[in-house]
Amino acid sequence: MSKGLTSRAEDYSQWYNELVAKADLAEHSAVRGCMVIKPYGYSIWEKMQSVLDQKFKETGHSNAYFPLFIPKSFFSKEASHVDGFATECAVVTHYRLKNDGTGNIIVDEEAKLEEELIVRPTSETIIWNTYKGWIQSYRDLPILVNQWANVVRWEMRTRLFLRTAEFLWQEGHTAHATREEAVEETEKMLEVYADFAENWLALPVVRGKKTANERFAGALDTYCIEALMQDGKALQAGTSHFLGQNFAKAFDVKFTSKEGKQEFVWATSWGVSTRLMGALIMAHSDDAGLVLPPKLAPIQVVIVPINKGEEELARITVVADDIIAQLKAKGISVKYDDRDTQRPGFKFAEYEMKGVPVRLAIGGRDLDNNTIEVARRDTRTKETMSRDNIADVVESLLEEIQNNIYQKAHRFKEENTTKVDTYEEFKRVLDEKPGFVAAHWDGTSETEQRIKEETKATIRCIPLNNEQEEGVCILTGKPSTQRVLFARAY
Amino acid sequence: MSKGLTSRAEDYSQWYNELVAKADLAEHSAVRGCMVIKPYGYSIWEKMQSVLDQKFKETGHSNAYFPLFIPKSFFSKEASHVDGFATECAVVTHYRLKNDGTGNIIVDEEAKLEEELIVRPTSETIIWNTYKGWIQSYRDLPILVNQWANVVRWEMRTRLFLRTAEFLWQEGHTAHATREEAVEETEKMLEVYADFAENWLALPVVRGKKTANERFAGALDTYCIEALMQDGKALQAGTSHFLGQNFAKAFDVKFTSKEGKQEFVWATSWGVSTRLMGALIMAHSDDAGLVLPPKLAPIQVVIVPINKGEEELARITVVADDIIAQLKAKGISVKYDDRDTQRPGFKFAEYEMKGVPVRLAIGGRDLDNNTIEVARRDTRTKETMSRDNIADVVESLLEEIQNNIYQKAHRFKEENTTKVDTYEEFKRVLDEKPGFVAAHWDGTSETEQRIKEETKATIRCIPLNNEQEEGVCILTGKPSTQRVLFARAY
Repeated sequence: MSKGLTSRAEDYSQWYNELVAKADLAEHSAVRGCMVIKPYGYSIWEKMQSVLDQKFKETGHSNAYFPLFIPKSFFSKEASHVDGFATECAVVTHYRLKNDGTGNIIVDEEAKLEEELIVRPTSETIIWNTYKGWIQSYRDLPILVNQWANVVRWEMRTRLFLRTAEFLWQEGHTAHATREEAVEETEKMLEVYADFAENWLALPVVRGKKTANERFAGALDTYCIEALMQDGKALQAGTSHFLGQNFAKAFDVKFTSKEGKQEFVWATSWGVSTRLMGALIMAHSDDAGLVLPPKLAPIQVVIVPINKGEEELARITVVADDIIAQLKAKGISVKYDDRDTQRPGFKFAEYEMKGVPVRLAIGGRDLDNNTIEVARRDTRTKETMSRDNIADVVESLLEEIQNNIYQKAHRFKEENTTKVDTYEEFKRVLDEKPGFVAAHWDGTSETEQRIKEETKATIRCIPLNNEQEEGVCILTGKPSTQRVLFARAY
Repeated sequence: MSKGLTSRAEDYSQWYNELVAKADLAEHSAVRGCMVIKPYGYSIWEKMQSVLDQKFKETGHSNAYFPLFIPKSFFSKEASHVDGFATECAVVTHYRLKNDGTGNIIVDEEAKLEEELIVRPTSETIIWNTYKGWIQSYRDLPILVNQWANVVRWEMRTRLFLRTAEFLWQEGHTAHATREEAVEETEKMLEVYADFAENWLALPVVRGKKTANERFAGALDTYCIEALMQDGKALQAGTSHFLGQNFAKAFDVKFTSKEGKQEFVWATSWGVSTRLMGALIMAHSDDAGLVLPPKLAPIQVVIVPINKGEEELARITVVADDIIAQLKAKGISVKYDDRDTQRPGFKFAEYEMKGVPVRLAIGGRDLDNNTIEVARRDTRTKETMSRDNIADVVESLLEEIQNNIYQKAHRFKEENTTKVDTYEEFKRVLDEKPGFVAAHWDGTSETEQRIKEETKATIRCIPLNNEQEEGVCILTGKPSTQRVLFARAY
């Protein structure tokens, strides 16, 4: 906590990097592109996992585990899939090291694999190869399986949480007897993600569909939730893919229907990753550090004693212990920081940096007056209050903070979503008031591509339940029936 | 469920393989040595994870995540460590595939890594390289970190759960200021494992230390828990290593002590893996299938209606719903299987195969008589009981089953632990009454090695708090002060 952060206004990217380091969330490792998720950062991820896992189970899914490695040949079976991932694959070619005789450890060239193995960038191929053995009849369907795993995509330019060569994620892979059921599943899981983003991450999102250009490699339709960061760039926070029968055909997975016919199985896949950590950090945090929504904060409340001497500390601790017991009884996580190696001011800055939603401070005068100082992280305001009903007060305050963080992000998104009708206006808004830009588009990949090349803005999504409206494409002037959301994106 | 299992007496190994398949626990994948853990098997692993994770947190540990890949050069830094793992490493050499122009996907030779990466077989090296940046002063110690992860050891002969090229595990890695503290941690975590094995897996274990031959590569001391399977072979169920300052020296991790001196940090590591699934299966199960200790059973109670027609089913369901509510209120997991596609007998066999501890059946006559059939999996006995207080009855029964399974395994271990005083007797017991063989040994690696070559038995451990007793080595006749435990092992 020796120094503050570079401000967001000064250098947003630098602010992010410093914050990730100073809040003890993650760091770069000795392996290019691979991160170390530090205990504090990981404890936030664990909270996310726990909430999501419960939601998956409530919607009928079970967890399973599939191999880390995928035979190279599997990648060629679904043409668009291999195109999407071939350029970023870690390849295992050997299975043994040896001493070269002079003490150096080298790869043993004799231990070469007959077929190279790919470290999974995503698991559709190995899973559909497995499902082939699980599915014979309509009675074996649906299969509703999720996997928590690490995956590797060899990114050349990496950023902690946002873009790393290895990341952690969950990938759901479901198999269905009908197209309708698979589409329903795709949409249901998108809504699970949206609900999680809004009600836990406090992150308002746009639910939409990707254009053909931006679809997952192998999908017929990619649904997504898109969020807006404080610098006006968009971040894709989760995707849910309707895969049609593509993978069933690639791996020959058929079932006997109720009517006795052989049919290909319908598929979905859906995932969110440690990228959500990046979204969480960038959406809410400020120049003093992390701002965490209380529902995902590993420490919801910290209590700091402001004591002169040990005798006073002992008396403060008696009061603190009582408050801790009351908070714990309400299921609120609380830390008492009575370290004597750091001053209160240092501790205050540390917990601000780490985004602890509520800080309570108790000094000698508070002992006499039955008071306590209550500071909230989101607004950086504090107030001296009576200790009567303090647990109830804190409980309500946590709810208020959760809500306030969401509302703030919601207002930001609303204020930074701009309708434009000309290409000039489009480019001006992107530079002067970046955010989502709602504009008419002629529906072609060519136009989308040209806009991307000229402005670095991509179509983030075609919002679900989008308002239909006559208009003309900002680039080509061709007719259009709806606006789509453009943005520069992470 | 079409066919029963090969019996244990007939072919124990075959019985195991069939059971793993028929109970839907795991299967081989298309990648040699890598398994697919199926949803039912994974749900047992999740229960293990959840209990262990809580125990780790209660003992002050936090989770974190370190990279999947380790630079090859790291392996050479700790000499005994590289010797232990070099022969079984998956090596990543390239980071891209490409189309060869004729539609074939090949490895892009231009995308060759400057330094090969090893898929972690264990993470001491990458973690100690990271800890170097985390530790400056005694105030930074201890570091108490655990990681849940996949690891890869290229095994040539694999068996589901017991020995697979990729497996799931947790690995704790702690850093301490003193030798005493590190030894204390090593012993504490061994006891966590032993407690988990005995009170959750219902698996009695011997706590002990490995001989130098059997130590972890890089450890000064390896503590272990050893369990006995029903075929008389031992299985190492968990290890806890005192690593001394070996990894701190290899990665130059020093701290400034309270006295201002620069000292190397002391280390431990400890782990259990999906191998515990193999132990769980082999220790308790029988010729009808899996036997699960209730504390780890994903489904603790199944209710099967025995109805004639739909009207009776409806009346049974009313009764079942009431029982389900009562059981759930007690935190007991219960499944109601009213599928009309399978007969009750089929369902009974299926839940026996899957090891569901308690089965309740309700038929038409039970409706009139206020009765219910209660069957327990461990003893394969059943009884018709009154439905009054059935939830209390089931709750006690689950505890009794947990205890009975443990006691049975405990008796088996006691009956199959034999003291021998001559090499002839030693060899005879190994063949005729396999199990733990307690024998005197002269303490040398040579003797241990020769016994292993001649009998395939290894020293499983030197039990903690071992009785001291004068004797002579069974092989060499040299003096010995204690018996050690030999066995053939998985």
